[in-house]
This record gives sequence, C-alpha cells and structure tokens, in this order.
Amino acid sequence: MANDEFDSSDSVRTGRPLAHARTLTFPGPWTLECGGRLPEVTVAFETYGALNADRSNAVLICHALSGDSHVARHHDQDDPGWWDIAVGPGKAIDTDRYFVICPNVLGGCRGSTGPNSIHPETGQPYGPAFPLITIGDIVNVQQRLIAALGIDRLLAVIGGSLGGHMALTWATRFPDQVAGTVAIATSPRLTSQALAFDVVGRNAIMQDTGYQSGRYYDQEPGPRVGLAIARMLGHITYLSREAMMEKFDSDRLRPRDVATQFETKFSVGSYLAYQGDRFGERFDANSYITLSMAMDLFDMGATKDQLVSSIRSARSRWLVISYTSDWLFPPFQSQEIVDALLGTNQSVSYCNVVSSCGHDAFLLPNELETYGGLISGFLANLNGTTGDSNVLGSHGPHNPTSIFHNPQRLDYHTMADLIPEGASVLDLGCGNGGLLALLRSRGHRRLMGIELDEAAVVNCVRRGLDVVQADLNHGLANYADGQFDVVVLSQTLQTVIDVRTVIREMLRVGRRGVVSFPNLGYFKLREQLAQHGRAPLVALGGGSRWYETHNVRFLTIADFEEFCRDHAITIHEQVALDTENGRRITDDPNLNADLAIVMLSR
Amino acid sequence: MANDEFDSSDSVRTGRPLAHARTLTFPGPWTLECGGRLPEVTVAFETYGALNADRSNAVLICHALSGDSHVARHHDQDDPGWWDIAVGPGKAIDTDRYFVICPNVLGGCRGSTGPNSIHPETGQPYGPAFPLITIGDIVNVQQRLIAALGIDRLLAVIGGSLGGHMALTWATRFPDQVAGTVAIATSPRLTSQALAFDVVGRNAIMQDTGYQSGRYYDQEPGPRVGLAIARMLGHITYLSREAMMEKFDSDRLRPRDVATQFETKFSVGSYLAYQGDRFGERFDANSYITLSMAMDLFDMGATKDQLVSSIRSARSRWLVISYTSDWLFPPFQSQEIVDALLGTNQSVSYCNVVSSCGHDAFLLPNELETYGGLISGFLANLNGTTGDSNVLGSHGPHNPTSIFHNPQRLDYHTMADLIPEGASVLDLGCGNGGLLALLRSRGHRRLMGIELDEAAVVNCVRRGLDVVQADLNHGLANYADGQFDVVVLSQTLQTVIDVRTVIREMLRVGRRGVVSFPNLGYFKLREQLAQHGRAPLVALGGGSRWYETHNVRFLTIADFEEFCRDHAITIHEQVALDTENGRRITDDPNLNADLAIVMLSR
Repeated sequence: MANDEFDSSDSVRTGRPLAHARTLTFPGPWTLECGGRLPEVTVAFETYGALNADRSNAVLICHALSGDSHVARHHDQDDPGWWDIAVGPGKAIDTDRYFVICPNVLGGCRGSTGPNSIHPETGQPYGPAFPLITIGDIVNVQQRLIAALGIDRLLAVIGGSLGGHMALTWATRFPDQVAGTVAIATSPRLTSQALAFDVVGRNAIMQDTGYQSGRYYDQEPGPRVGLAIARMLGHITYLSREAMMEKFDSDRLRPRDVATQFETKFSVGSYLAYQGDRFGERFDANSYITLSMAMDLFDMGATKDQLVSSIRSARSRWLVISYTSDWLFPPFQSQEIVDALLGTNQSVSYCNVVSSCGHDAFLLPNELETYGGLISGFLANLNGTTGDSNVLGSHGPHNPTSIFHNPQRLDYHTMADLIPEGASVLDLGCGNGGLLALLRSRGHRRLMGIELDEAAVVNCVRRGLDVVQADLNHGLANYADGQFDVVVLSQTLQTVIDVRTVIREMLRVGRRGVVSFPNLGYFKLREQLAQHGRAPLVALGGGSRWYETHNVRFLTIADFEEFCRDHAITIHEQVALDTENGRRITDDPNLNADLAIVMLSR
Repeated sequence: MANDEFDSSDSVRTGRPLAHARTLTFPGPWTLECGGRLPEVTVAFETYGALNADRSNAVLICHALSGDSHVARHHDQDDPGWWDIAVGPGKAIDTDRYFVICPNVLGGCRGSTGPNSIHPETGQPYGPAFPLITIGDIVNVQQRLIAALGIDRLLAVIGGSLGGHMALTWATRFPDQVAGTVAIATSPRLTSQALAFDVVGRNAIMQDTGYQSGRYYDQEPGPRVGLAIARMLGHITYLSREAMMEKFDSDRLRPRDVATQFETKFSVGSYLAYQGDRFGERFDANSYITLSMAMDLFDMGATKDQLVSSIRSARSRWLVISYTSDWLFPPFQSQEIVDALLGTNQSVSYCNVVSSCGHDAFLLPNELETYGGLISGFLANLNGTTGDSNVLGSHGPHNPTSIFHNPQRLDYHTMADLIPEGASVLDLGCGNGGLLALLRSRGHRRLMGIELDEAAVVNCVRRGLDVVQADLNHGLANYADGQFDVVVLSQTLQTVIDVRTVIREMLRVGRRGVVSFPNLGYFKLREQLAQHGRAPLVALGGGSRWYETHNVRFLTIADFEEFCRDHAITIHEQVALDTENGRRITDDPNLNADLAIVMLSR
C-alpha cells in the first residue's frame, strides 16, 4: 500500500517488533502448507481497547502487503498507524466498543517470524531458507494468537487487499470462530494482470545483482534497486489513473528535488523514485517476495463452482466492499465473492463504493464516510442485534415513523399481507429498506435487498439488513432457481429498461413474485391524454413531468395482464389500490386504481 | 507492441536496414528540437504499390515503439509485417490503390539513424551520445523522405500509438501536405499512469549493471535483463485485463517450458519471460530509451485550450479511432483530440471501437472489420469524392433508394425543406446518415453527425460523412456556442433520458434547432389508452410494445409547446405530419398528427 507515513527502518534488518508490539512465540516444529517447516513461530501484535467480560467483542484486523501491527496510534503523541483514520475511539472500528488485535503477518519483516528473523539453530537470518508460505499458514498463526489471548470467537475479521485474502481464509477455515467477515478491496484470487505485475516486481528484485540469491543481510546495499523498482511498479497499481492525473498532470515536468539514482525528469518519476527509495529503507526484499508469492498462490477457485465450494463452509455474516476505480482488485472480483456467498445462501451485504482513489481507497480518508459507515453499521449489527432503527432519522429524506404510518405506504402493508408468514424475501430495488424492515418486524427471518443507490445501501447496512448493490437491468444470474420464497419488485418495474429480463429472473429466483407498479390506465391519467392532449403525469414511483420522471416504462394493469399471458406467467392474486384515498379497488381496477400489486409465478 | 512475428536480431547490433528496405541519407548537420545535433540522417523505408501519375495516392504509415519499416509482406513468401492484416492488395489500406510508404523512425534500430548507428566521425555506435529527440524530429525526417520521393502532398498519414503522435504532428506541422489524418489508439500526451510505466521501464534498463551508461555494444549481454523487464511491463500495458484473463486464467499454474533466467512459476510469468527474452534479441535498449522518452515528451497540451491551440493549424480531414479496453491510451484521450478538432471546426470522424484486446487491438485481427472499414471508407472519400452511395445496400437494413423514396421518410424531406439553403448542420443521432446524405445532395457543405451505434458510424464514414460517436445524454460540452447554423434531433428526443440537457445543448450549439418526435396526442394513441385502457403503442422511432420499445420519453405536441414556454425557447416553425398517409396536418395537429417537426431557438 502507498501509506508511508511511518518508518522504523532498523526493524527491517533486525526483524525487531515495533515499539508498541507485544510478541508471543509458539514452539514448533510448524509444518507449512507447501511442505516447509519452521522450528518456531513468533508473532508480533498490537491491541487496542479492552476485551469485554464474555470475550465477544474481539476484532481482528489483517494488514496488507506492506503493513504491520501498528494499525493505529495508541496515544496522541504516538505515530499514526496505517489505518488510523478507521481505528480508534469513536471511529468506524471503535476501540471504545471493540477489542482490536492487529498482528504482523508470518513472513513479514516487522517482528513476526519472516525471512529476516534469526533462525534459532543457525543464529543467522533465514534469508532464502525461509520456506514458501501460504495465506493459510498466515491465518493459522493468527488463530494460535487469538486462542492464546483466550478468545474463542471473533466478533469480526477485517482485512483489505492481501488482508482480505486472510479474512476470506478465516471465515472458511474457522467458521465457528468468526461472527462477521469484512472483506475489502480483495478477490478470490489475483487477476492474471495483477499476477503479472507481481512477477515483474519479483524479477526486478531477484535479478538485482545485490540480491545474491537472498543472502544479502550482511551486504550493503542489498537488492535496493530491484526492490525500489518493484515498489514503483506496485505503487502505480495502487493508484487509479484519475488519481495520478490529479497528482501529476498539471506539473508533469516539475519533478521534486530528491536525491536518488533513479530517473527524475518527470514529476511522477521523482515521486516514484522517492517511494521506491523509502520502501527499501523500511521493507525487506525477501519478505516482499515471500508475501507477494503467498498472495499470488491464494486461489479460491477459477470458476463459480470452485469458488462456491471453497466458501461453502463459512458461517459468518459478510460485508464485502470494493471501490469503483480499483483496477488491481477490480470490483467484479468482489462481486464474484458475493455471488458465491449468495450461491451458498449466506448473509451478505455488498457495496461498490464510488471512488477515484484506486486500490488505495480503503486506506484513504476520501470515501471513509461511506466505507467507515458500512463497517461500523455492520459491526453494530453482529451478535444478534437488529439494527439501527433510527437510520433514516438522520440520513434518509423521510422519518421512518412517517413512512410506516403514512397512508402512502399502504402498498408496503398490502404487499406484506400478501407474503406468506415466515417466507424468505428478496426485495429488488429495496431503497432504504423500508419494506424489508417491516417484514422483519413481522417476524420474517431470511430477508435480503438489492439496491443500486450507494447511500441507500449504507442505510440498509446500518439498519442491520442484508443488501447487495447491483443494477437490476443486469439480471440476477448469480441467484439460484427458487432461492427465495418471494421476490418483490416494489414500484421499480417502471424504472427498468429490460422488463422481460427482470421479470423472468424474479420468477426464476423466487417461487413467487410480487410486483407493484403505477397503473397508466387510472382514469385521471386517461383523462389527461384523452381530454387534454397531455402526457399522463404518473405521480407514483419518482413521478413528475415527461422530461424529468425516473419512469421509463408506462403500462396499464391490462398491459401487464397481457404480458403475463404472453409469457406464460400465472397471476395468483391481484390487489388494486387507490393510494390517494388509501383504499382497495375492486370495481374496474384498470380504470379506478392508481397502483397495482400482483402476485405471480411461472 | 506485442507483435513478435518477425525477427532479424542482427540488425539490432548493426543497425542494418531490413531485407526489403531502401535507405536515403540526408547530410547534416541536423539540429534537433532539444538542441542536439546529428552529422547526417539515414532513413530506412519500404514502399508498397505504385505512385499514380498526379502523385496523389501516397499514404504514409508511422510505426509504433517497437515497429519498423516492414509493415506488410512484399510477396507471398515474405515475412509478414507488423500490420500485414491491414496493408496489402485489397486490404483496408489497399496497396492496389495507394502508394504506401513506411519508414523506420529516427532513433530506431532497424536501419534509420539511431543509437546503434555508426557515428560517421568516430566509427563507433552513438550509444549514449545519441541526442534527445522528439516526435517533431522524427516527423521532420519523414517529411524530408516524402519530399525526396517527389511527393508534395500525402493522401493520408496513418499511425497508431506512438505512430499516432507522429500523425498528429504531421497534420499540425505540415498542414498543406496532408489530405487525411488517421490517428489510432493515441493521445495528445501520455497519461501520468502511462508515463509512470515508461519511467519504471527505463529505470530497469539504466540500473541494469550491463547497461554501462549506454556503452554496451561491444559487451555481452548488455542490459538484456533490464530491457526484458521493461518489455514485460510494457507488454502488460498493451493487453487488456480481459485479454490476459482469457489467455492465462484457466491454466495459471501451467507455465510454458521456456529456457530463461526469469521466474516461470505461473503461466503468465513464463509468457512474459519469453516476450522479455525475445525482445532483447530484436531491439536495442538505447533505442527503447530514446523512443520512449520522445513519446513521454510529446505534449499537445494539458488543457483543452492548449490542445486547441496546438491543433488549430491542421487542415486535413481526420479519422480518430480508439478501443474501449485500451487503458494505456484510453478512449477519453482520443475524445480530447476529437473535441479540440471540433473546437477548431475541422472535419473529423471518431469511433470508439468495442474491443477486449486493449491497446494492441489496432494490431490484431479481432476488430479489423470495424477499424479496417473505417480506414478504407475514410481513405476512399478523401480527394473530394462524395462517398459510397451504396453503403446501405450491403450493410444497412434498408436499401437507400427505398429510404429516400419511401413516404415514411417524408420527415427527412420536410426537415430538409425547413433548413435554410447552404446551412451548416449537425444531426444528433444521425443513424446511417440518411438525412445528412439528403442534405449533401441538396448542396449543403458543412455537415456532421453524432451517433452512438458503431455499425452506423462505420456506415456514415463509408458514405463520406463526418460522424462522431458519442452518447447524447452526456451533452455537447465540446461544441462551441453557435457552431452550427442548425442542429437536428430527428426522432431521437424520445429515446434520451436527459431531455433538458439535450435540448439546452442543441440550442447552444445550433443557432436553430430542428426537432422531430412522435406525438403521443395522436388520436389513435389517445384511443388506445382512453377506450381500451392500454398503453399507447407509439409506432414511430423504434416503437413497439411498452416493455420493448426504445422510447423512454412520451410527449404530445402540447407537452412540447409547454416545455418550450417554460424554458424560454422560441418556436419558429412547426410542421405536423400524418406519416401513415404521407400528408401534412394543419387541423388540430396535437390530435391528428403522429409526428411533429419543430424549428426552435433560444
């Protein structure tokens, strides 16, 4: 990651833990997943906050490739940690509420056993003798640490990038020990493109004549040039093109004045030279090779089936976060994780946070309000609480009380009445989760929403609802046939372009579908066109004048009935409402109702 | 570029031209743009086809970073060239019609003067003494070559990537010597991201201990490792993520068996190692540094104003092509070129070709039908011909004859009648260019279309029309106020979401606007809703049933009139048509017309 705020370069050579870190050493021999062995394993870690009496508030944070145990400052005068913006008293990961543990990873160079550690038998650094390790090995060490701290079950495991690979591994390997998993800017395995960048970086290190096959600890400068080149390259991949443009485009030929052996003709070059040089002071080349290789070997599967099979064992609730401009761990990979979780009926929320900051977005303050809000909302709703009932009081346009008692929401109650008791429900276009919250209050347990709007997704998560951000026009390909008892499309049909796909998919995924839509046949609308020669002003569903309405499809109840006939869809029940007067319509609904609610199936 | 099909490694060391190349040497001293000097300049080039009697059919092709003079094969047994798919008898750049010239660039290593050339005074290779050069220097040499061949004016200059920078420079530096400019997968200057990759690549070469400050010609292996790493990195940037996934994702742990010193654990790694090693055999590291630096220094401006000022001097017609998955020279950069051309009232066509092949797409056969069709259509319409009148006979759904004589196209003739004689016209959503072709046949000279559909854009170019691919919903920000006499929105209004932006923009860019739209007030449509309770089936403009129509906005003539009143828009003329019966309607048009045509202004 690009976070270079802190530095303690001596630990790179000595492998000593950072100032606030404690260490625990577990005697071996440890047999590793690729067959290697370690005579013992030391883990350096820092903790924040206090473990509560029933030991149920522990949160494990897993750092990324170049991170360490110092996730946040311990006091005002302390060095800021790599995620200081998100971890601390009153912050998204609130150390007043949670006991936060952050260990340096196995294979790292900041106090945990790694290539720069002294081999207890030889008295020399491991160097090239350090074995090939996997993310599984890293997580096994973390699990031993957690057990040693007397914690049976983590409230949550949280990690971004490489740390996300650890979170995924925790959830699937130790399913009974994780209540919530937060996987940020991560992937089921690297793209071939990301893998290729790692390969080039390792080649640059290992071909550096200073690398000496990894035995460089007693020789200056070691593979500093190769490591700097790997870091420069990595750094480019952590930033988005937009972020780089903003940083360097206006003064591209005014480089910073840095003392370096690297090219500094362009301002971006001087910046990369600086980052590359500094990284060589604070990170160990063998650790870089070890950890990047562990990341490259991480693989939950190439196909959906393989991924489903890898993730099936998990039992936690999940929060998956990606960033729109992250091209190293692109959003579609987070969506693959979400799809596999959906495919195994797990409880998951997902948001693709709009950001121009690239992969580094999860370390930066720019979108903290969104991703921090998601994380804090998710954490607050673990352990069986049922969400922040006042979410919309502060964030939504309406007070939730008014929504539920407003006769306008007669449609919600009508739909809730139609839905069988205890049925599992997927709400397509769930907004702030009003209908889902109503269903939860009626005792429904398996509830889930799909919503496109980012703020609405955050509101749902704060309410403790499972919500996946997605565009309905792209279908529901990753939901299984009959996965829900009922799929709801509440005043959303008229806003989607591809009506046939949406309806076909809802009736594939739901055993029943419930659709509500404004009725263009309503007599007042007919009058507007017939008598006044004006386009009907459909008031419901984001309605307003022809050129500014969110509605893009216009249909009458009769049109919808014909559509169902033509597409072999059965209508089981139909309720027509006059929402202006808050009553049901039974007499000629196509003329007298302004809203139709229909229960369907294939 | 990734095209590695041919090889003649000895020329890298000797600087000898390729088998079919001729050379011309221009005595110096040549003073270069950054102040350097060359005692003489040799240019190696190959030609294809024959120069016609009036010397008006010469096409100059500019190669990219690692290309050379051998653009295509000269006979069946010849080595294929780097653009063999596009250049040859009957191909997109038809050597039966055009006299094609492809020179190796100044600074290259395939016969033209470059760092591996022998300095005439010292008898040694230039090496690090080879001066800093610019794209301008490269183009100056090309211009001397063209003059020496007796050509006063090129029919076209064509180049992709770095070659595109040359095409841009040709058009602006020698405006009277270029009839048509084809700029492919290129940019006004590199993004900071692309620049950063170049910097890392050069650092890898120059920090290689074999580089010896550039004096490595008499030492093996020279900076082969650094050059290979630069090439691996470059190679990643030439491919798209999708293309890499397709190539490597299914067998990522099954590397090819290549003899190399580089990492080959992963299949993508073995591929990069192979590409890196081969590149070192066929390319000179000093040339790589020289040419990548020339590319990095190329700069037509950071702002729109600077770019406009750089491009203002050009006089050619333009074809600009980008590829959707090209992230090294991303499409927005081609659009910046197009915007600057529009801002200076130049004749330009633009297409962002849908491709998953990344930057390399312009060298690959996958999208050749599209980009080759654009190039051949563009070339065929230079020199004052007026296009392929039979375009739609073979490619469109209708025969053009039927379109123009079909009473359905009464609307075109009505609009054409409304438009003042000789007016300049921009047609928003121009489709296959039917209305524009009609206007051209009536003597209008400045005509231009905007269209989203790729196939329609190709058809317009084949017809010799200027067309820019764009989404109207994003506005016309890059057109000047009052740039056209008339802007037309023909049966497109009802398909755009953001009506206000589109109308506001059309009346900013056009002194007058002409809008045609289907009238929802037409009595047959009213009846459908009022009497039958069915959504009106608007037949015009891609009309069909409510769930499959392309129309997303529904309005009556009265609605549009109100819209104009509310937005302070003046209606100058209004023609209402009954297109079913092919007649004008004057009696209660909002009831009796199915199509309205309105001339507007602010």
